[in-house]
Amino acid sequence: MKHTIAVIVENKPAVLTRIAGLFSRRSFNIDSLSVGATDNPEYSRMTITVHGDEDVLEQVIKQLSKLINVIRVSEIEPGEAVERELAMIKVNADKDSRSEILQIVNIFRAKIVDVSARSMIIEVTGDEEKIEAIVALLRQFGIKEMARTGKVSMVRGMRVIKA
Amino acid sequence: MKHTIAVIVENKPAVLTRIAGLFSRRSFNIDSLSVGATDNPEYSRMTITVHGDEDVLEQVIKQLSKLINVIRVSEIEPGEAVERELAMIKVNADKDSRSEILQIVNIFRAKIVDVSARSMIIEVTGDEEKIEAIVALLRQFGIKEMARTGKVSMVRGMRVIKA
Repeated sequence: MKHTIAVIVENKPAVLTRIAGLFSRRSFNIDSLSVGATDNPEYSRMTITVHGDEDVLEQVIKQLSKLINVIRVSEIEPGEAVERELAMIKVNADKDSRSEILQIVNIFRAKIVDVSARSMIIEVTGDEEKIEAIVALLRQFGIKEMARTGKVSMVRGMRVIKA
Repeated sequence: MKHTIAVIVENKPAVLTRIAGLFSRRSFNIDSLSVGATDNPEYSRMTITVHGDEDVLEQVIKQLSKLINVIRVSEIEPGEAVERELAMIKVNADKDSRSEILQIVNIFRAKIVDVSARSMIIEVTGDEEKIEAIVALLRQFGIKEMARTGKVSMVRGMRVIKA
């Protein structure tokens, strides 16, 4: 089963190494990871997506909380949160295929952010299923390159995860 | 000066630890990091943003390329690429402030993805400057929580960074 963990950390060089090490020593492969600024410049927020055994994960979360420079660790249940990632997808696109690609882009409320004679870059945001769906449709044109941010997740309503 | 590095890696548990370790041993603080799927399930793509001394960074990039499970390392110049990140921002919002927040959301082509009696979650994508700008405007309402994906960066036109 997939799990999403939000971790608030102090901005120190070694904190990512320690966190990554904790997961890899347990042979947990991190499916996606994003690390970005919070509204406080002293802290960053990591969103980690992993799949694996529930009991082992519970131990990992306990150990995470004890790491130096780690301020807060919360598991986020998918049902209670808004989950989003951003993907940029470069596809083959010439004058014959451009309008068909544009249709797909509109259906998914995506954006075209670069056009050249034989390629386009499409930006799309959504949950994992939406991104997989547009990727599946674009595959017929030939995907040249894809970059995805990894997921961020925020609990709906008033509950707050911060330092 | 800020630098953006794209790294294509094999999906192995220890690769993130080794990469993070390389930066932290040199006391490079990673400003933002995103790790996500590529169009090939065997590989992930990391986008790393760091600031620091050019010469030291050049050495770090060389060492990165030699790491096991690292397939490709490319520095991306901001001028040649589309750079995007996604932010979710939870702000205080009641019936008095909601319409003013909505105006800001529309100006930035952002989206409201959750509403409660006293809060809203706003989703916005863009480059760092755009996200800083909307954050600055929303600060007057009280930012309760913010999560950002970290940047992804893709070279415009036909050039491709992949395994």
